[in-house]
Amino acid sequence: MKPIEECTIGIVGMGLMGGAFAIALRNRCGIAQNNLLACDIDGNALTLAREAGLIAQGWEGARAGEMLARCDVVFLCPGPAALLKFLDEWEHSFKPGALVTDIAGVKGSIAARAEQLRSDIEFIPGHPMAGAEGGGFAAAARCNFQGKNYILTPLSRNKPENLLFLKDLIHRMGFGRITETSPADHDRKIAFTSQLCHVIAASLIDCEADTAITRFGGGSFEDLTRIAVFNAPLWTELFTTNRDALLERIDQFEDSLDAIKGFIRDGKITEMEQRLARVRERRQALDKLP
Amino acid sequence: MKPIEECTIGIVGMGLMGGAFAIALRNRCGIAQNNLLACDIDGNALTLAREAGLIAQGWEGARAGEMLARCDVVFLCPGPAALLKFLDEWEHSFKPGALVTDIAGVKGSIAARAEQLRSDIEFIPGHPMAGAEGGGFAAAARCNFQGKNYILTPLSRNKPENLLFLKDLIHRMGFGRITETSPADHDRKIAFTSQLCHVIAASLIDCEADTAITRFGGGSFEDLTRIAVFNAPLWTELFTTNRDALLERIDQFEDSLDAIKGFIRDGKITEMEQRLARVRERRQALDKLP
Repeated sequence: MKPIEECTIGIVGMGLMGGAFAIALRNRCGIAQNNLLACDIDGNALTLAREAGLIAQGWEGARAGEMLARCDVVFLCPGPAALLKFLDEWEHSFKPGALVTDIAGVKGSIAARAEQLRSDIEFIPGHPMAGAEGGGFAAAARCNFQGKNYILTPLSRNKPENLLFLKDLIHRMGFGRITETSPADHDRKIAFTSQLCHVIAASLIDCEADTAITRFGGGSFEDLTRIAVFNAPLWTELFTTNRDALLERIDQFEDSLDAIKGFIRDGKITEMEQRLARVRERRQALDKLP
Repeated sequence: MKPIEECTIGIVGMGLMGGAFAIALRNRCGIAQNNLLACDIDGNALTLAREAGLIAQGWEGARAGEMLARCDVVFLCPGPAALLKFLDEWEHSFKPGALVTDIAGVKGSIAARAEQLRSDIEFIPGHPMAGAEGGGFAAAARCNFQGKNYILTPLSRNKPENLLFLKDLIHRMGFGRITETSPADHDRKIAFTSQLCHVIAASLIDCEADTAITRFGGGSFEDLTRIAVFNAPLWTELFTTNRDALLERIDQFEDSLDAIKGFIRDGKITEMEQRLARVRERRQALDKLP
């Protein structure tokens, strides 16, 4: 692979994450505007990205193949289902040898499809753990990559030098820890750290209609529900695509909740204090992780 | 009541909240060190508070009566059970006409006891919605009052001018909204905004032992569990003292969680999207409250 500064880079989907990649590639990695291309179903986002000095040229949906044919590196930024559809439609258009990665929040189905791609496409599935409230290209500038986690689920056929190339680019965009794992392990863990937390935040908002109840709060309720500003179709897709792993996590959470509820109901003071002391210890250990 | 600057103010319990009150009274309300007294079961906290220039004198537990006899205004800062015990032991020692308030996180039992106090004690039950991780006098400086909520559950016998005096003092310490309500309404709403949120955060930490799982997160798990650094005895007491209201809130939350789990399990895409859209709308309304 030639140096990244000499690569033509394409971004599929100029929404929140696609826009944030464009900004990071331009501002942090020194990629010239001339070398940055994008396609999107929404021509308006492409115009905005070009006028913002991010991309040289944009292609609307039906002409994505023209862009793909020119790109050495491609970031695929649609959600899981739209991504699979995009690959079916445009697999033949990728430039031979192109390094391709995605951002889908579930990796099992994506990695399985990636294994079936043309052998001259180097697809390395990924998941940047960054986002911003709102969504869409307009929110891209508020999406901060600095120090954030990035997960890769490489295919057995990926070449080590291409993996190194992508990891270097990820670090240069500002991300911190990069973790490599299997698609199944990713999906099990993301079901906990991300999806379960979003289900809980949604449930907490759902069970109380009186928004003025925050007059009685010290901020806990607001903190626990800050992530509840849902892009409803995207999160519905993430929840249902990772159904089995997520349902298992919800069950585990309910078991813990039931145990604590039992301590309260039955006045088990000692058991409650011991449980809360263990929780405190475990929570403090989180913040001491490297 | 004479002007607050001329009052002798006593703080019972020089822990996190007692210390934070002392700091606010000295730094924001212009109370002289000479007019600020404290008692505590821990002589060490009293020494620290005196050396920090906060209080003129401290009395250890068994001599609390000597302090109470001198105070025009008293902040009672123990937890609910210790507070009831303190009132039983020291009711006879309060100065006639003293304005007394407390900070206990449940108000039903406190307000009931306050109704029975000597008729020449003006007890106005309160609940400042502020805190800091950790606890104890050492954490007091990190307890920020600015703009925070404060709840009062006045007794029918409280004099309007005394209520106004206390509310003015609360605002001068930095608090924002002051809400007056009944003890039962306080306990029902606090069960939601505070206690349920703490039960959820505890359950979320409880159901996953692998602290390194945060390598797979974008921060949601950390956000939802930031409050899980429990003072275990205090929170056990708050949970069990407000048992019925809290159990009802847990049940309501579980109903919402079960509904969302059902949508995921049964692949009810439309219902899920509608529910998340409503959650988003309701969450956004929170931040638009005055």
